[in-house]
Amino acid sequence: MLTPIQRDRLDVVLVSPRNPLNIGAVARAMANFGFEHLSVVGAYEPHWREARSAVGAPELLAGAREYATVAEAVANCTFVLGTGTLTYRKPDQPVIPLPALAPVVERELTRGGRAAILFGSEKRGLSRDDLSYCHALIEIPTDPRQPSMNLGQAAAVCLYEIASGSSRAAAEAAPTHAAVDSGTLDRLAKLIEQAMTAAHYSPASMREANRHDLRVLLRRLNLAPLDSRRVFGLFRRILHRLTENKRT
Amino acid sequence: MLTPIQRDRLDVVLVSPRNPLNIGAVARAMANFGFEHLSVVGAYEPHWREARSAVGAPELLAGAREYATVAEAVANCTFVLGTGTLTYRKPDQPVIPLPALAPVVERELTRGGRAAILFGSEKRGLSRDDLSYCHALIEIPTDPRQPSMNLGQAAAVCLYEIASGSSRAAAEAAPTHAAVDSGTLDRLAKLIEQAMTAAHYSPASMREANRHDLRVLLRRLNLAPLDSRRVFGLFRRILHRLTENKRT
Repeated sequence: MLTPIQRDRLDVVLVSPRNPLNIGAVARAMANFGFEHLSVVGAYEPHWREARSAVGAPELLAGAREYATVAEAVANCTFVLGTGTLTYRKPDQPVIPLPALAPVVERELTRGGRAAILFGSEKRGLSRDDLSYCHALIEIPTDPRQPSMNLGQAAAVCLYEIASGSSRAAAEAAPTHAAVDSGTLDRLAKLIEQAMTAAHYSPASMREANRHDLRVLLRRLNLAPLDSRRVFGLFRRILHRLTENKRT
Repeated sequence: MLTPIQRDRLDVVLVSPRNPLNIGAVARAMANFGFEHLSVVGAYEPHWREARSAVGAPELLAGAREYATVAEAVANCTFVLGTGTLTYRKPDQPVIPLPALAPVVERELTRGGRAAILFGSEKRGLSRDDLSYCHALIEIPTDPRQPSMNLGQAAAVCLYEIASGSSRAAAEAAPTHAAVDSGTLDRLAKLIEQAMTAAHYSPASMREANRHDLRVLLRRLNLAPLDSRRVFGLFRRILHRLTENKRT
């Protein structure tokens, strides 16, 4: 996970964006993943104004910087990344698959660098000239039949990866709850067995095998303490009814 | 990286989506990452029609299935994942951070299961009732100051992670068993409820709450098919005895 100081050293740069909704979506993804610095190159004024004044526009849009050229926008950056479909061109720069990007960016930010990610216009993407300012290109692993992503979604995916990708190795798969101890499971198994017997669930000859299976099953279920109390309550009730009815 | 066959066993389920642009964006993200199966629950007809007929709408929108309830939409799924902001509620289910999700989903698909990811409406997200059909919840690691993501972007981030995340770290070889589908769990829940009623386990006023808790519990238990058949057998027997005795 990137620290706030590291996030503060990453710029998102939109080159000639058109659709105000997309500009807003990029800003929202930035806010979602904790990035604040948006730059816009060659903004089309009416659309840019509309995006900034939209209801619910993230605050960072108001603080966005405007530039005339990519060169100016990335002048203080040490590591510039380009995005876009790579299907039809042979890139001049090294290509980094997005799933491998986070450690690369983190290394750069950790050593005090400043990174930028460039997104081109919805229609044409980044030009060859824009790309010439990039140290590397990001390849989002999309389906070859539908490689081209929506701008807001592409930004979301890239920022998600950079923000959280490096925490992945450390992330634990399954969060766990407090466990039920073995003695409790044994008491539960006994109660269920009594209910089975009262319900004539299986012949006595099967009892040993059922007991074994039940013990294994109860352990595999990984019951939380509350689950275990409920199952106790239900089977006590069932047992009570079964034996009570028998007595009448 | 998921194989085409694995991708074919994942459903994206939109519950009460409103904005046609968002529906289109979800479909586009699915096409980008190679997923084809979209289901919609409780679609608002005019918006749904608009989304499907939009210029450039991904083909998979035309093949989307419509359902009246979440239960029907996920009936043949073995692993159902919920999404949404967790800030304001304490979840009943285990929470999986998105960066740790891919190996979990891949394991499920590898053992022949069918997975679903549920996205709620833009305004309200998933209801508590919707969530009770989920085995686990996905937590997207967003900034606490701006936790709520746009629907199309949330879908893009989740599908990106599932499609490519597992290529990052080799999935663990945890011993697993085949899974039980959601419709079977619903039938099992109904049977257990009948036994509860026959045993006078709880007052009628608690029935709704118990039903909810039971649904959540059955999903958490991760029953193997054999377990499920046994529990069916036991509760059928219990129910039979309880009602038979009552008749005498």
